[in-house]
Amino acid sequence: MKARVHITLKNGVLDPQGKAVENALHGHGFKSASDVRQGKFIELNIAETDAAKAKSTVEDMCRKLLANTVIENFSVEVVD
Amino acid sequence: MKARVHITLKNGVLDPQGKAVENALHGHGFKSASDVRQGKFIELNIAETDAAKAKSTVEDMCRKLLANTVIENFSVEVVD
Repeated sequence: MKARVHITLKNGVLDPQGKAVENALHGHGFKSASDVRQGKFIELNIAETDAAKAKSTVEDMCRKLLANTVIENFSVEVVD
Repeated sequence: MKARVHITLKNGVLDPQGKAVENALHGHGFKSASDVRQGKFIELNIAETDAAKAKSTVEDMCRKLLANTVIENFSVEVVD
């Protein structure tokens, strides 16, 4: 099965990378952009046939390795 | 309006960051993970009321700044 993971900074956590992107967009004339937040997106295959089990394994991966749960939220979708 | 942008490496482009994540997952006992690919996820607000226009503006941002279209694909969703 294929899993898609989004890892985003929690609300209230400063996002200097997003701020830099926002400033660059403004510098390129895209003045309408605001509140830019940058996160990570991870796609992976998982050798598992049960969708619920696959999801819980990937959530476990997020908690143990992929996300820093102090400052980041994660969400997992299983596709296929 | 809110836009969500996914930027992923094109197929065939080596992804050393994804490979490093995969190796780390294996090292943590998640042997079922494979084909890990890491991309970027950007959320932003755009001061625009027309969804089609907002989408085309954000696609323009991707082509001009956010994505390296030689090696990366991007996809834009407009929500709200």
